[in-house]
Amino acid sequence: MTPFTHLDNDGHLHMVDVSDKEPTLRRAEASCVVHSAIDLDALAPTTTGLDPVVAARLVGIQAAKRTAQMIPLCHPLNLNDVQVAITKDDGAITVRTTVVAVNRTGVEMEALAACAVAALSLVNALVTLDATARFEDLVLERKSGGTSGDWGRLIGAGPADTPDEGD
Amino acid sequence: MTPFTHLDNDGHLHMVDVSDKEPTLRRAEASCVVHSAIDLDALAPTTTGLDPVVAARLVGIQAAKRTAQMIPLCHPLNLNDVQVAITKDDGAITVRTTVVAVNRTGVEMEALAACAVAALSLVNALVTLDATARFEDLVLERKSGGTSGDWGRLIGAGPADTPDEGD
Amino acid sequence: MTPFTHLDNDGHLHMVDVSDKEPTLRRAEASCVVHSAIDLDALAPTTTGLDPVVAARLVGIQAAKRTAQMIPLCHPLNLNDVQVAITKDDGAITVRTTVVAVNRTGVEMEALAACAVAALSLVNALVTLDATARFEDLVLERKSGGTSGDWGRLIGAGPADTPDEGD
Amino acid sequence: MTPFTHLDNDGHLHMVDVSDKEPTLRRAEASCVVHSAIDLDALAPTTTGLDPVVAARLVGIQAAKRTAQMIPLCHPLNLNDVQVAITKDDGAITVRTTVVAVNRTGVEMEALAACAVAALSLVNALVTLDATARFEDLVLERKSGGTSGDWGRLIGAGPADTPDEGD
Amino acid sequence: MTPFTHLDNDGHLHMVDVSDKEPTLRRAEASCVVHSAIDLDALAPTTTGLDPVVAARLVGIQAAKRTAQMIPLCHPLNLNDVQVAITKDDGAITVRTTVVAVNRTGVEMEALAACAVAALSLVNALVTLDATARFEDLVLERKSGGTSGDWGRLIGAGPADTPDEGD
Amino acid sequence: MTPFTHLDNDGHLHMVDVSDKEPTLRRAEASCVVHSAIDLDALAPTTTGLDPVVAARLVGIQAAKRTAQMIPLCHPLNLNDVQVAITKDDGAITVRTTVVAVNRTGVEMEALAACAVAALSLVNALVTLDATARFEDLVLERKSGGTSGDWGRLIGAGPADTPDEGD
Repeated sequence: MTPFTHLDNDGHLHMVDVSDKEPTLRRAEASCVVHSAIDLDALAPTTTGLDPVVAARLVGIQAAKRTAQMIPLCHPLNLNDVQVAITKDDGAITVRTTVVAVNRTGVEMEALAACAVAALSLVNALVTLDATARFEDLVLERKSGGTSGDWGRLIGAGPADTPDEGD
Repeated sequence: MTPFTHLDNDGHLHMVDVSDKEPTLRRAEASCVVHSAIDLDALAPTTTGLDPVVAARLVGIQAAKRTAQMIPLCHPLNLNDVQVAITKDDGAITVRTTVVAVNRTGVEMEALAACAVAALSLVNALVTLDATARFEDLVLERKSGGTSGDWGRLIGAGPADTPDEGD
Repeated sequence: MTPFTHLDNDGHLHMVDVSDKEPTLRRAEASCVVHSAIDLDALAPTTTGLDPVVAARLVGIQAAKRTAQMIPLCHPLNLNDVQVAITKDDGAITVRTTVVAVNRTGVEMEALAACAVAALSLVNALVTLDATARFEDLVLERKSGGTSGDWGRLIGAGPADTPDEGD
Repeated sequence: MTPFTHLDNDGHLHMVDVSDKEPTLRRAEASCVVHSAIDLDALAPTTTGLDPVVAARLVGIQAAKRTAQMIPLCHPLNLNDVQVAITKDDGAITVRTTVVAVNRTGVEMEALAACAVAALSLVNALVTLDATARFEDLVLERKSGGTSGDWGRLIGAGPADTPDEGD
Repeated sequence: MTPFTHLDNDGHLHMVDVSDKEPTLRRAEASCVVHSAIDLDALAPTTTGLDPVVAARLVGIQAAKRTAQMIPLCHPLNLNDVQVAITKDDGAITVRTTVVAVNRTGVEMEALAACAVAALSLVNALVTLDATARFEDLVLERKSGGTSGDWGRLIGAGPADTPDEGD
Repeated sequence: MTPFTHLDNDGHLHMVDVSDKEPTLRRAEASCVVHSAIDLDALAPTTTGLDPVVAARLVGIQAAKRTAQMIPLCHPLNLNDVQVAITKDDGAITVRTTVVAVNRTGVEMEALAACAVAALSLVNALVTLDATARFEDLVLERKSGGTSGDWGRLIGAGPADTPDEGD
């Protein structure tokens, strides 16, 4: 009755049984942006000042691995790769994550979780000086693999567009 | 040299030693908003459909407790209370969190982490149907306690405004 | 000498090396019952009162994923599905769990762990009002897959009954 | 309206804010019993055969520390002591746990969680040989400290019997 | 430019994408030695005194499973087997670990982590009596599987010696 | 009978009950050394090459917080500060850690755990190029606070030298 794959016939939350799906290569990308009123270059005035950026990359990688602990309906899974790229632009820091796995279900939540927690780590560095530091626009950028086919935020669904049954 | 409390004199990331601070009552509130192109009421068409909202509250509480595992420079601490409120408005779901502790350092990051991960849990329910589901404007709303005094996003700093040395 | 697969030839606890086993579909079901002197319907007088039941389902799912962290000799593994069903009968709440995985070893402990911790979550809701709330009869109901073949508590072993070497 | 301290005025699950309570010495004891059709002494035919019992004690201690991760509404807290005693009687293994903390809320759930997970560890050693191994009667035996005063399963409430507001 | 597989072309730490590698049987062994000024037999004067040794074996097994949580660039993976052997010699306790998995990357770090944390557990038993208890020579003993082929500390590389791209 | 505080009167491992001890300021320092046959400066040829060192510092901080999860008899506790310093000398990398807490028991194991796991992180960066990379001499350098008084590896015990009952 409900279109939500996470609700069963009785309307209860449940994990999606992925036993009938074959493991295939899955890839997902996400992004978000951290804003702060203070000069972001103050984060990195010297060589060693890059530390908060290195920290955010590692924090994002660890968060991707911890996704199924954080989000109850996510399947525990092995990951082939997690990349976290952080770039500083005019008054903003952009976090972009890519997660890759051979798996029965997608890695969208892993990419989003890595992005959100890496951004939290940057906010942690900023918030004692600027309590208004915030992050916004956490969004899935792209995904590929699985029965639902490829999809990109800016390009829309590719040829195969059946919704993916797994998370 | 650097104004960042998380960077030591050599510009390296470090934890802030809070041994000289007395434990006092700390409170912090954060919020963020989840947007989706689909009708959000579909999340809760019936009694049992409230499950994703209940899940997000529990997920946020658990994330608050896990903050120091997620964010390296956060101090591990006990929490007196974590509240996660979720309200559905016109085309948006607002997540508001409150964290309370008696502690030597603030609980800002705990409130932000609870908010971000509760929002991820809602996105998890939406993203298989709407890949553009996103959350934005994760921001600290208010904090009280500690040497830096009270602060509110809409009201600014209270009388005591020395930056809090701890995280 | 010892018949226990978890004891090596010297009588020491050890993990069972499952390298010689092929991954196959494994399924296990467990159940237990929570008793309390108070009226259990008080847990769910209204729509929103269902929260403790939703919570117990999520808690059970998370416990299944955490089994190898809780029980040292359990192999870490990915799970295809975890289901937690909770039904209220006359003066008792029954918790039933099902765990499914494609794996080199069984998922009996995952089903039992999910069941035990979901029951603990229900006891947590009851115990401040009724300190005698208890749970009992945590038991494996059924399992299938692996060299030891199918087994059911009420039906006994199926045709293949060699004990499964893995956990 | 609801007598459950874990439900707020709207009937939603919430953590109990313990900020108004003073930290005091809390103690709780729990027990449960593991039954198996096979000769339990086979678990410990020799010196080294004691390993499953040692394992269960350690597993119980670790579970007590992990209670707030397993059960969402439990407060994270430091523990002064966790004891896990395991005795083998006629066809049964009894697990008894004691948890002690100086804290704003009770440690009942920590004692129950330690007991349940230690019993799971024993079942893990038995279940490959005896699929009917089960545990039952997980129950709080005794607690002391807090505004609700002392209580014992066999002796009832002590003089102070106001329900403890915390978990 | 850099020969380090963990540094990308820009010199940043990154996980190694193992998507192009096939899962194969991997095995790694590590060892280290714990020294203490006190009589090590005091650890095990009686049957039950073996507890610290049993504990260290279990602790090592759990650490192997937790490697990817401890070390950011390690891939999360399932393990077929973890063995921890502890032998007491003249004034020293030797810890030897073996980890086996079918995986796209090696299990060297899992064997080293199991060894290090098992040794920490032994030091924990000794350090209150002998603050100079230490461990040393944590080293990889042997590994097999993967494109880099077999290698042993005492025998050097086997025929295939291309460095393994994964961790 | 046994002098080990971690063994009870029956010779069983147990946690030490620290309820009778007052929280006081505790500090502990540990160190270890990582050796490798390859040129260690290759780890940091450029600015960004410092990443493995930043990573090791963060990894050590996270390990200190995780000590009670890794080592069963350690008490869970809050930490005021964790410092991890990494210096490269001639053919060796020295890791030094300092942990500070106000607590009923010492933080020696936290300092040792931070040191061991930070060193593992450095070995992780080296081991794919040099399988003989190893670390050695993990040792407590200094501790202060608690009934056992101050102690230093090079200076011996200070005036108060009763063994500390806690871990």
